[in-house]
Amino acid sequence: MNPKLKDVADAAGVSLSTASRALANNPTIAQATRDKVQQIAKELNYRPNAQAQGLRASRSNSIGVIVPTLNNPYFAAMASAIEEENSAVGLNTLVVSSAEDPERFDKSIDTLLSHQSDGIIAVPIEGNDDNLNYAAATKPLLLIDRKIGDHPAVVSDPTPGIDSALAHLAAHGHKRVGYLSGPKNTSTGAERFGAGRDAAARHGLDWVIHHGGFTHQEGFAGTQELLQQGVTAIVAGDGMMTTGALEACHRANVKLGSELALIGFDDVPFLRFQPAPVSVIDQDVDALARQAAHTLINAVLKGGTLDSTVIPSTFIPRASSDFDIHT
Amino acid sequence: MNPKLKDVADAAGVSLSTASRALANNPTIAQATRDKVQQIAKELNYRPNAQAQGLRASRSNSIGVIVPTLNNPYFAAMASAIEEENSAVGLNTLVVSSAEDPERFDKSIDTLLSHQSDGIIAVPIEGNDDNLNYAAATKPLLLIDRKIGDHPAVVSDPTPGIDSALAHLAAHGHKRVGYLSGPKNTSTGAERFGAGRDAAARHGLDWVIHHGGFTHQEGFAGTQELLQQGVTAIVAGDGMMTTGALEACHRANVKLGSELALIGFDDVPFLRFQPAPVSVIDQDVDALARQAAHTLINAVLKGGTLDSTVIPSTFIPRASSDFDIHT
Repeated sequence: MNPKLKDVADAAGVSLSTASRALANNPTIAQATRDKVQQIAKELNYRPNAQAQGLRASRSNSIGVIVPTLNNPYFAAMASAIEEENSAVGLNTLVVSSAEDPERFDKSIDTLLSHQSDGIIAVPIEGNDDNLNYAAATKPLLLIDRKIGDHPAVVSDPTPGIDSALAHLAAHGHKRVGYLSGPKNTSTGAERFGAGRDAAARHGLDWVIHHGGFTHQEGFAGTQELLQQGVTAIVAGDGMMTTGALEACHRANVKLGSELALIGFDDVPFLRFQPAPVSVIDQDVDALARQAAHTLINAVLKGGTLDSTVIPSTFIPRASSDFDIHT
Repeated sequence: MNPKLKDVADAAGVSLSTASRALANNPTIAQATRDKVQQIAKELNYRPNAQAQGLRASRSNSIGVIVPTLNNPYFAAMASAIEEENSAVGLNTLVVSSAEDPERFDKSIDTLLSHQSDGIIAVPIEGNDDNLNYAAATKPLLLIDRKIGDHPAVVSDPTPGIDSALAHLAAHGHKRVGYLSGPKNTSTGAERFGAGRDAAARHGLDWVIHHGGFTHQEGFAGTQELLQQGVTAIVAGDGMMTTGALEACHRANVKLGSELALIGFDDVPFLRFQPAPVSVIDQDVDALARQAAHTLINAVLKGGTLDSTVIPSTFIPRASSDFDIHT
């Protein structure tokens, strides 16, 4: 039996990623630790290339998918579409959730690697660079939805959709628009924040921001706050905040499509059959997921390269914002 | 290396479940096949008990969950709640989807077993008895949502919720009520069908049935059909059919809460902030999922028995049905 990296790491009393970097003589690891790990690897007769080849040869026919939570329809739809594409070529899909927790993300990576997933598609979290680097060195790894470092990623460009949405609001007479912002420590939160700020400036809008998280609760509380600040339109930064905004408007008896313009994020079916169907900035999660699946499948089955893809967002106007406001 | 059941099955050219049953001398397997498999097992020195104990000793700290699809918020919420409970005791969760396809269900079982999941929680599909029996003989297996055979299961009892819902409709003057029925080849579809028929008879209601599947499309088409048949109320048989019914009413401009009573199935957040918040028959998917997780965790970590649990459904009346109809 060839010793595994895990055996070396265990014998040295260090983590997998530390062992990996120590063997690569990475200067971020203390010299004493590097010496120790390299010595143990020699004693155990650890051969990284042989092991990597062994792993490559023993395909498990399964792909791992890491999403923050399945309770968000956006990520559930993403996992489901990836699963369909994998299934069409005979690959199984194992879905794990990180709960936006860096420790659980690390455990998810470890679980999928120890189960010999042939490749991983992950929605990353800030602060997992070591484990991402380790995973990428072990198996084909493709990020989706969010970018981190230089890892290949399939992401949406929020700018076209947000710019069209704000042009639409400006054309309908709005001056003061509220924005339900997600966390700025994710690439999606930060990019949408920047795209909104720039588009608001371009279209001469007063841009009032509620800083929150990608949750129903934050969308609900943020909408209550923005309504008190006298905005005539609200743009939500993700799908969970959109449903929170809808619930807040419903409770406050604010009529969408006449008293307030609402623009949601991500085209979830039930938004279409509200009394005033809800306009959305749409990322086309189905296209993102299928593109990611095709890229990873090609890498796993044919050794293809993992290329990054950017899919432009679009704006879908509906009755919730398609009216003139008089301010 | 001890040979595995898979080695025996491969050498005999039969499936895992056939090999398992042949070794158990199961009379549903042809005598010639039983002889062949038993001979090969002897030649390979296959020892089932040693292997089972080996598996038991080498816990992977992960639990497998099989759901039909993550695109149904009911199953996404189920997987998510199970995941939370597992995570709280340090177990990882691998979620796979069967797409309601018996072959994919079989592959999901095989994938989870080959990845040495410590236990499995599954929404079963009719026609998978062999593989379920094999899985149950190998690892703790708990069914959820649907029952098959004698396997322990955590399920909802639809009768109390459906009976209260129909009593409520009868008390509000309805005579002719439509029902969007799911497939009768699932225990959930069959039980809800029977519970609805019996409750309608008890409450003197004319019960008009659309036979469909648990999909948005079937809910949509079924509602259009039932509206033409002159019903004054519609009861949906699951959450996907509920959103289909909502979309059909929206398109046909039928006012819920005055022109038509709608009672949905499963309490999904957005149903609460419709213009007429939607009454539901609720299974409490969160309670089902957490009960299943606790039972399986107890079996995996402490060798506890896998007991079945039945959780009664409830009826939550809201504005969509809480009005008197005049017929």
